[in-house]
Amino acid sequence: MHSVGQVTPQSQHFAQPLALQSGASLRDYTLVYETYGTLNEARSNAVLVCHALNASHHVAGTYAGQVNSEGWWDNLIGPGKALDTNRFFVIGVNNLGSCFGSTGPMHLNPDTGAPYGAGFPVVTVEDWVDAQARLLDALGIEQLAAVIGGSLGGMQALSWSLRYPQRLRHCIAVATAPNLSAQNIAFNEVARRAIVTDPDFHGGHYYAHGVVPKRGLRVARMIGHITYLSDDAMEAKFGRGMKGATPNYSTQDIEFEIESYLRYQGDKFSEYFDANTYLLITRALDYFDPARDFDGDLSAAFAAFSPERSRELVKALLDNRRDVSYAEIEAPHGHDAFLLDDARYHALLRACFDNIAKETK
Amino acid sequence: MHSVGQVTPQSQHFAQPLALQSGASLRDYTLVYETYGTLNEARSNAVLVCHALNASHHVAGTYAGQVNSEGWWDNLIGPGKALDTNRFFVIGVNNLGSCFGSTGPMHLNPDTGAPYGAGFPVVTVEDWVDAQARLLDALGIEQLAAVIGGSLGGMQALSWSLRYPQRLRHCIAVATAPNLSAQNIAFNEVARRAIVTDPDFHGGHYYAHGVVPKRGLRVARMIGHITYLSDDAMEAKFGRGMKGATPNYSTQDIEFEIESYLRYQGDKFSEYFDANTYLLITRALDYFDPARDFDGDLSAAFAAFSPERSRELVKALLDNRRDVSYAEIEAPHGHDAFLLDDARYHALLRACFDNIAKETK
Repeated sequence: MHSVGQVTPQSQHFAQPLALQSGASLRDYTLVYETYGTLNEARSNAVLVCHALNASHHVAGTYAGQVNSEGWWDNLIGPGKALDTNRFFVIGVNNLGSCFGSTGPMHLNPDTGAPYGAGFPVVTVEDWVDAQARLLDALGIEQLAAVIGGSLGGMQALSWSLRYPQRLRHCIAVATAPNLSAQNIAFNEVARRAIVTDPDFHGGHYYAHGVVPKRGLRVARMIGHITYLSDDAMEAKFGRGMKGATPNYSTQDIEFEIESYLRYQGDKFSEYFDANTYLLITRALDYFDPARDFDGDLSAAFAAFSPERSRELVKALLDNRRDVSYAEIEAPHGHDAFLLDDARYHALLRACFDNIAKETK
Repeated sequence: MHSVGQVTPQSQHFAQPLALQSGASLRDYTLVYETYGTLNEARSNAVLVCHALNASHHVAGTYAGQVNSEGWWDNLIGPGKALDTNRFFVIGVNNLGSCFGSTGPMHLNPDTGAPYGAGFPVVTVEDWVDAQARLLDALGIEQLAAVIGGSLGGMQALSWSLRYPQRLRHCIAVATAPNLSAQNIAFNEVARRAIVTDPDFHGGHYYAHGVVPKRGLRVARMIGHITYLSDDAMEAKFGRGMKGATPNYSTQDIEFEIESYLRYQGDKFSEYFDANTYLLITRALDYFDPARDFDGDLSAAFAAFSPERSRELVKALLDNRRDVSYAEIEAPHGHDAFLLDDARYHALLRACFDNIAKETK
């Protein structure tokens, strides 16, 4: 098993406006993407990888001259890996509204000549999928062998199967849900309030002020990290461990190891992530609810991304006599376990892609 | 069952310094308290009620001329109620560091003549209990019939039984835990960071600037409300309900009912609660860990305040051949259910106080 090696992002400009779910439209836009492996002659071996909240098109491989620049799903994708680039042509694409290259709030609005900022239109999972479909058009790919994604990426995979059922042969949705629960929305909302009430947010036009609402971003990320880790994983990793042998009796100094971890994650995130993008992406998560268009059949909700939520999806698919496989893997690490290289999980995905590869020949 | 009627807070000044767990001391301080019912001749029927995060000494009854001024545990305490003021002399006391009357960060530091602000010493559950014990001295009460509290109040009740075992006959600890889990500390830490990074916090000396770090308080309270409600209760109450018939596609407007609820709670809290007090009280929660002094026997932790955490306490008490009763009541409303008047819960407490009253005669 090897890495795909050095990779280079590419970009595709779309001059045709994109009509959005909100009724607004993007006059023109650019998508940044990467590809690994080779598109076969039949153009039938393409696999699209959709990213979650803070990831990007950089799914596998490394960038020249950058240490620690492995793509976010590098453990899964490469020659001989579970998603084998000797067999598949893998596409990673950065979504609209992101801060990693595709058109987003920090880019110039062609209508005003100023950065979009808070004026960037609200985009949904469906909008992302529509934009991705146009990228496939540009790449000359009529039908995907598979779409795969975890978490918010899994929602995109689900949306693909609903919007473009003829354009994919397989949909692999990992650690995902048919919609967010009230509690999930609640956490997103607190994170957004922390950002938009940071005085450095300037109503979303902070670019013009040369500042970044880092205080809000830090708090948002700290909240996120609590929800990504399961209770048990956090307890096992940090427990009540303290930085010092005895308490300092301070309300502001770091006393517990978990505090140190969260502050570190918050600080790091605030250095590279865009606040407007955070608002847009969490909102896309909130809105996603394909059942809304089908009389709310899937909408009785528990905790998002739990096996219960996945089973809801499976039931809905079975009810419609669809060909569906479901695997539940014990993962004590919580939601972000979909990014880890658990042996059982990767063995399952490997078997899945082996089967897909057979029909692709 | 009646209300205790109109009540009036009293206050007691202590000129003797109070030595704190941190090694610091409070030169002098005042405790505000209320009492309901009558102390019997044997002075044996007193019940102390300890409060949790945002409550106070105002446990039962109403204030003259103030509508909706019922005390926070008015459904439990009164003539004929489960904690019957015809039988018991009930004391509610406001803790040190609070913002509801007892000496706290907004009061003048006698050493400097300026408000304590961030200079108010960090107080612990044990410090609160020590201060409460002095109030009992002042009231001429040698031994309590019982100490009762829920959540952080339950921690004080537990601490009473460890620090002053001869001064109470019964300890009733509701919805509490032997210590906070990593996840609980994590939520407290995010709330504190939201407060202290609000530019209006001014390092804890915002009183001098005539401002209040409301943005931070709002976020802190929103986080709190997510943790007070169980997943299921939030889902049942709000689900994915939206304010409008169709989405507005906005990242900042309220779209979901849960957002409206959280913002309302945050706004309300920021109008009356003191930011330094919030820091102090959440820190007292974090630090509480009586097992730390006993080789950490109780410290293997899961989610705080869950039945598992209560059972840990029961096991530790049984291991020491203590007389202990444990009741587990299904409460779909989550942690704050200890404040509700669930019939089974109140019937249990009524039976418990009936037994205590019998021996008190």
